[in-house]
Amino acid sequence: MSDNSNRTPEHEFAVGIDFGTLSGRAVVVRVSDGKEFGSAVHTYAHGVIERTLPGTDAALGPNWALQSPEDWREVLRRAVPKALAVAGVDPSQVIGIATDFTACTVMPTLTDGTPLCELDELADRPHAWPKLWKHHAAQPHADRINETARRTGEKWLGRYGGKISSEWEFAKGLQVLDEDPELYARTDRWIEAADWIVWELTGTESRNVCTAGYKGIHTEDGYPSAQYLTELHPDFGTFTDKLADQLLPLGARAGGLSERAAEWTGLPVGIAVAAGNVDAHVTAAAADATRPGQMVAIMGTSTCHVMSSDQLAEVPGMCGVVQGGIIDGLWGYEAGQSAVGDIFGWFVDNCVPGAYEAEAERRGISVHQYLEELAAEQPVGAHGLVALDWHNGNRSILVDHDLSGVIIGQTLGTRPEDTYRALIESTAFGARRIVEAFEEAGVPVDEFIVAGGLLKNRLLMQIYADVLRRPISTVGSDQGPALGSAIHAAVAAGAYPDVPTAAAAMGRRTKSSYEPDSGRADVYDRLYAEYRGLHDHFAGEAYGGTGVLHRLHELRNEATR
Amino acid sequence: MSDNSNRTPEHEFAVGIDFGTLSGRAVVVRVSDGKEFGSAVHTYAHGVIERTLPGTDAALGPNWALQSPEDWREVLRRAVPKALAVAGVDPSQVIGIATDFTACTVMPTLTDGTPLCELDELADRPHAWPKLWKHHAAQPHADRINETARRTGEKWLGRYGGKISSEWEFAKGLQVLDEDPELYARTDRWIEAADWIVWELTGTESRNVCTAGYKGIHTEDGYPSAQYLTELHPDFGTFTDKLADQLLPLGARAGGLSERAAEWTGLPVGIAVAAGNVDAHVTAAAADATRPGQMVAIMGTSTCHVMSSDQLAEVPGMCGVVQGGIIDGLWGYEAGQSAVGDIFGWFVDNCVPGAYEAEAERRGISVHQYLEELAAEQPVGAHGLVALDWHNGNRSILVDHDLSGVIIGQTLGTRPEDTYRALIESTAFGARRIVEAFEEAGVPVDEFIVAGGLLKNRLLMQIYADVLRRPISTVGSDQGPALGSAIHAAVAAGAYPDVPTAAAAMGRRTKSSYEPDSGRADVYDRLYAEYRGLHDHFAGEAYGGTGVLHRLHELRNEATR
Repeated sequence: MSDNSNRTPEHEFAVGIDFGTLSGRAVVVRVSDGKEFGSAVHTYAHGVIERTLPGTDAALGPNWALQSPEDWREVLRRAVPKALAVAGVDPSQVIGIATDFTACTVMPTLTDGTPLCELDELADRPHAWPKLWKHHAAQPHADRINETARRTGEKWLGRYGGKISSEWEFAKGLQVLDEDPELYARTDRWIEAADWIVWELTGTESRNVCTAGYKGIHTEDGYPSAQYLTELHPDFGTFTDKLADQLLPLGARAGGLSERAAEWTGLPVGIAVAAGNVDAHVTAAAADATRPGQMVAIMGTSTCHVMSSDQLAEVPGMCGVVQGGIIDGLWGYEAGQSAVGDIFGWFVDNCVPGAYEAEAERRGISVHQYLEELAAEQPVGAHGLVALDWHNGNRSILVDHDLSGVIIGQTLGTRPEDTYRALIESTAFGARRIVEAFEEAGVPVDEFIVAGGLLKNRLLMQIYADVLRRPISTVGSDQGPALGSAIHAAVAAGAYPDVPTAAAAMGRRTKSSYEPDSGRADVYDRLYAEYRGLHDHFAGEAYGGTGVLHRLHELRNEATR
Repeated sequence: MSDNSNRTPEHEFAVGIDFGTLSGRAVVVRVSDGKEFGSAVHTYAHGVIERTLPGTDAALGPNWALQSPEDWREVLRRAVPKALAVAGVDPSQVIGIATDFTACTVMPTLTDGTPLCELDELADRPHAWPKLWKHHAAQPHADRINETARRTGEKWLGRYGGKISSEWEFAKGLQVLDEDPELYARTDRWIEAADWIVWELTGTESRNVCTAGYKGIHTEDGYPSAQYLTELHPDFGTFTDKLADQLLPLGARAGGLSERAAEWTGLPVGIAVAAGNVDAHVTAAAADATRPGQMVAIMGTSTCHVMSSDQLAEVPGMCGVVQGGIIDGLWGYEAGQSAVGDIFGWFVDNCVPGAYEAEAERRGISVHQYLEELAAEQPVGAHGLVALDWHNGNRSILVDHDLSGVIIGQTLGTRPEDTYRALIESTAFGARRIVEAFEEAGVPVDEFIVAGGLLKNRLLMQIYADVLRRPISTVGSDQGPALGSAIHAAVAAGAYPDVPTAAAAMGRRTKSSYEPDSGRADVYDRLYAEYRGLHDHFAGEAYGGTGVLHRLHELRNEATR
């Protein structure tokens, strides 16, 4: 880099760490060109805690999902040194480290950052533990947040597509207060795991603009007012005291690596540690997709769509729009589909006969691959099916966890591969609905870039190109988030002036990996029209739908109570 | 019997033969009390002919379904002697024989009854073969029949719920004329297999009021007019010359057993042979359910509902109402659900994972039994699902083969047993819709009686009782149709004055085998309301629905053409 001519980035490295739902991955990346020299994965010992608290019989309620902070520290202790060893990189060559995390994964700590679940006297209290992003037990609290905000006309509500999610900081915090007020009182800090892990690395608390903005209802007006919060609960008015107002932009240096963290990781004391970040958002840098109109879809169990824009608009049903939320200086938009790969996984686990499993095994391929092969043979529309991809609710554009899946058109001749294909198509239709919502709101989408585990499903990628009727670009790394973090580490270390410049040097994508076929796209236009019809019919009453899925959800709750 | 005091029916027997879709069953029954002494089954060598004609490579089109007449003769030659042997009954003790058949299964013959498919020069012509009831390739012809009849205001249309089925005599006949006019010209007689088999037994052609009425559009005004038929096709005006106007009432003696048939069956020459009949309709006698308001549901792969009434009404979507169509002297109503057991069979074959199959095998039970066991554990509404049972179209009350299945409410937590239960419930909702349609039209349903193979599924039976909110009676024989035929044979032989009298002596049922539970019925009322909402939404445009299932059907046809 001309403006870094005093450096020799060919011999400098950055470490990026991606904290996922089940494991953490560290990657060692060359600062000059983003080349990945080595990586290592550490699987969390406790994974997702859904049934009972570790070491106890204390049963968790339905829709609970917790994690253990010690599992995350183990990633620092194990995956980082291993990645360095695999890379053959001397730790002294590492100039910075950065992390990204699932979000909103949020936890209560003492003022020194000690997780409350690590205090002996609180370890058996479910609310003392970090609540994973997919903890969905705070829906009644989210409902209260939204109803109250609508009533009191809170200005920030429109920034979040008109609805605050049960997954986010305020809903989860309100659940603690409602259900365990004593624990709530002991909570000095209510902090995203994305920021807590940076605290563990630096020894100093910091907060990043991304999680605060998307998950913490932080706008240019600050957090929601004490008056509003008091409406939710008399003791909730001071909730924001447990948060922080000073927010770091993405790519900023949060501090230097502490001695303790240097010991854990084997990295030099004092090297740059970047501000916390989110796994989806950081991927935009990995794909060198940091400019306005470049939508990156991170497709795995669920899909997260992130895109920067120089325009502020309130897109219906988006998850949020945050100034600097993805790239400093641009408005960052986030939208999402609450289940994508999870739907295919559910289908394979619950709806595919033994003969298919046996044939896949005989052929030495996965059931997914076998179904993909069979499904690829059929012309568009031949299965006669349309599905709604709401098996885990609908995040964008309806923001409704209580919706559920729909499939129409099955006959006595419908085969597993037919339904499998229809489910893939339903998620493509869901993606198209989101892209259209952005464009209808005046936020153009110029390029659609895919990252994440579903990249390897070629049929799915082609279907997305045909359904969206646009070329699909693909990220050039298998470990997008970790690479994106490494790019942020390089910026935090001063190797580049900003994330777009670093991403241009270190990130990569293949343009137009998949081109749409106009004949197939024409048929998909007709199927998408049917999807839209179902979408609007089965949406809740608030959207003019019948509300039948809500009534079924209510009936299910009644029946199982 | 007092009026038959010169007889000793304790030593007299009747033979009933039920010609099903895959096999024929003969049963030997004591005339005095209906006790079944023995039975035998013969499986058709050719089964359902769906791909190529026997002995040729000539491929059949989609939705074709044919049968071989020789397969039916083999039932006479094999099953009847075997049943007599099993029963230990001397053939000389048999006073009559009667048959029932699937319908509308219809075929072209010469004037002497020779099936055209048995002429060497025609054996490779698909249209020369008997068309099985489930031959569904005549839908365009049925559409033409219906559109024309609506346009010309044919009076008989209302008798058939406003629609003539593609399964029936006229649609199948018109298909022959359209697609193979030469074969049509060679067709001297166009005859139901139900009547043809009686011709084979007696040597004389006869026609029965039941198939003529339900499948042949024969009312008190005779067949449709030549003028109307000419509208369909210039050469179709004389179609009814291939039928017959002289119709035998049910239970009538069609003739005496011919020498050839006596040789085949081992029965005495000259014994009474009853008029042809239909498998569903004849079951009413077996259940001793011959009085007005007794609805008999014959539940197997599909369900057929038959009920007599002293009132004539046009019930929307019924299959037909025919004077004497079930019991001489009463109006006979028929309605139907085009797939019931077939839906469960499809589900088990296509949608149940290997682990379930393995567990069922380990336990030595069928997958159906295993799913039933799991599904029985859950409270009503707990699965959160509602389905439409239209996987093979909807016979009553929409009369639309082009509809297809719908299921809503699936989540990532939905298990196979949940969907299985929802599909069972969907068929119960379909039955309730039919019962309600009758009652809304002023034809009361006083008792709901179940016969057929699904009787053995106790969960299903209980669900029907709860959904219908009424007790369910069950037929007292495992071979209802064959017993029903034997009852008709006894009447034809003069052992009883009429079918109701014979049915009272020889038929049997258990009243209130299943009682509804009012708590469950309350929840089902709510689920049924949702089923009704889906039903009306997904019905075709003619019923105020969206027509989406028709568009998907059309798209599927386009894509696979």
